[in-house]
Amino acid sequence: MNLLLVEPDEVEADGLVTLSGPRAEHLLAVLRIAAGQEVRVGVLEGSRGLGTVTLVNGGTVELWCVFDGVVPTRPQVDVLLALPRPKVMRRLWAQLAALGVGQIILTNAGRVERNYFDSHVLEPACYRPLLVEGLQQARDTRVPAVSLHRQLKVLLEDRLDALFEGGTRVAADPSSTMAVRDVVDEHSGRVLLAIGPEGGWSAFETTLLQAHGFRLVGMGARTLRTDTACVALLALVQAAVSPG
Amino acid sequence: MNLLLVEPDEVEADGLVTLSGPRAEHLLAVLRIAAGQEVRVGVLEGSRGLGTVTLVNGGTVELWCVFDGVVPTRPQVDVLLALPRPKVMRRLWAQLAALGVGQIILTNAGRVERNYFDSHVLEPACYRPLLVEGLQQARDTRVPAVSLHRQLKVLLEDRLDALFEGGTRVAADPSSTMAVRDVVDEHSGRVLLAIGPEGGWSAFETTLLQAHGFRLVGMGARTLRTDTACVALLALVQAAVSPG
Repeated sequence: MNLLLVEPDEVEADGLVTLSGPRAEHLLAVLRIAAGQEVRVGVLEGSRGLGTVTLVNGGTVELWCVFDGVVPTRPQVDVLLALPRPKVMRRLWAQLAALGVGQIILTNAGRVERNYFDSHVLEPACYRPLLVEGLQQARDTRVPAVSLHRQLKVLLEDRLDALFEGGTRVAADPSSTMAVRDVVDEHSGRVLLAIGPEGGWSAFETTLLQAHGFRLVGMGARTLRTDTACVALLALVQAAVSPG
Repeated sequence: MNLLLVEPDEVEADGLVTLSGPRAEHLLAVLRIAAGQEVRVGVLEGSRGLGTVTLVNGGTVELWCVFDGVVPTRPQVDVLLALPRPKVMRRLWAQLAALGVGQIILTNAGRVERNYFDSHVLEPACYRPLLVEGLQQARDTRVPAVSLHRQLKVLLEDRLDALFEGGTRVAADPSSTMAVRDVVDEHSGRVLLAIGPEGGWSAFETTLLQAHGFRLVGMGARTLRTDTACVALLALVQAAVSPG
């Protein structure tokens, strides 16, 4: 944990935060904090600062926090992901939040198994702590927005323009000979990166994506698992939009 | 599995391959192959081709294979990795092989726990099947070379020049403001990418790496877990060395 994240209502008016449970345990058992020490603290969706440990009492930790008042900007890249199998999705939540995405749009596709949608990993009670874990790793406070769509066609035709206005849309397609850097640069604005299911987008889906403004990008001849491809492509898109 | 990989001694002189066990089970249960069908086949460290199913008998599959005689070139990028904890290393083997690396050099470092070296995941019997799984995913036949070093200083001073001759050495360091693309390009030759332990390289280690020709690169302000950083940085290095 590189940044201790707390909910806005956990911060009292005078900056006092009292923690018990897993975060207090982590502070005590892993970071071995003691009274007087400083810890980096952030408020979810808010700003970051320093917390001074004022009291350790059994399993409870009290911190007096001063925040800098600057809310980090939302990451510039969003992802649209054909829902991977639950085991993979569970691993991806924290990784996506750590890499930094503004929103995670999950969708059905021809090669997505229907029962993936019934999984526990799609419930906020399961994924929100994983997103927060990723943010604590990356020292960010902005929780990615999450939306779930059971029909790709309806998503693209009726909902996507509201979710993602303007900017640049790219979709990963192993057969494309265009690299990310050929399609995305520092003037691309917000970027939406679409990644298909384990077996790839169908021809119909690729055509539909293109009809809705997505340009296809590849990563060379090697076929990657969804989770590997997701991290790799996100890194490439983020590097491509950075100035310099 | 996008490419069925077999050991050289499993191919008879006439191109016949007889499989039983997990690979045969995968062909039958997942790919649902039947006599007459074609399957992409590769020989480990050798060339790729097509296998025609000539016989299915209980759990045994017989394929008649024709190979193209072209051995894929070894991937251009190598990694030097401060040994991550066993759970993370187990997940990385297949991902590294799928992304494509020529060799995996594992080393101790100040922030690596000593007992990580006792783990089962460092035994070839454990990791070789995971590397092969990654190659089958990415349709490659070249198994990354693996070496294990218990002292970073000895590795850098006495062994690294033999393992990695010429080329470009880069080390990930979160405090560096240089991006991968500032340091690596299509003229870099082979690239060795060094990635530190979960808590980062120590100041002494960073200085030692620089003294042995490593240039430091960062990925921006976000701190990533080793496995995420590894995939992300490898993707950036691979993109940077590709022409165009």
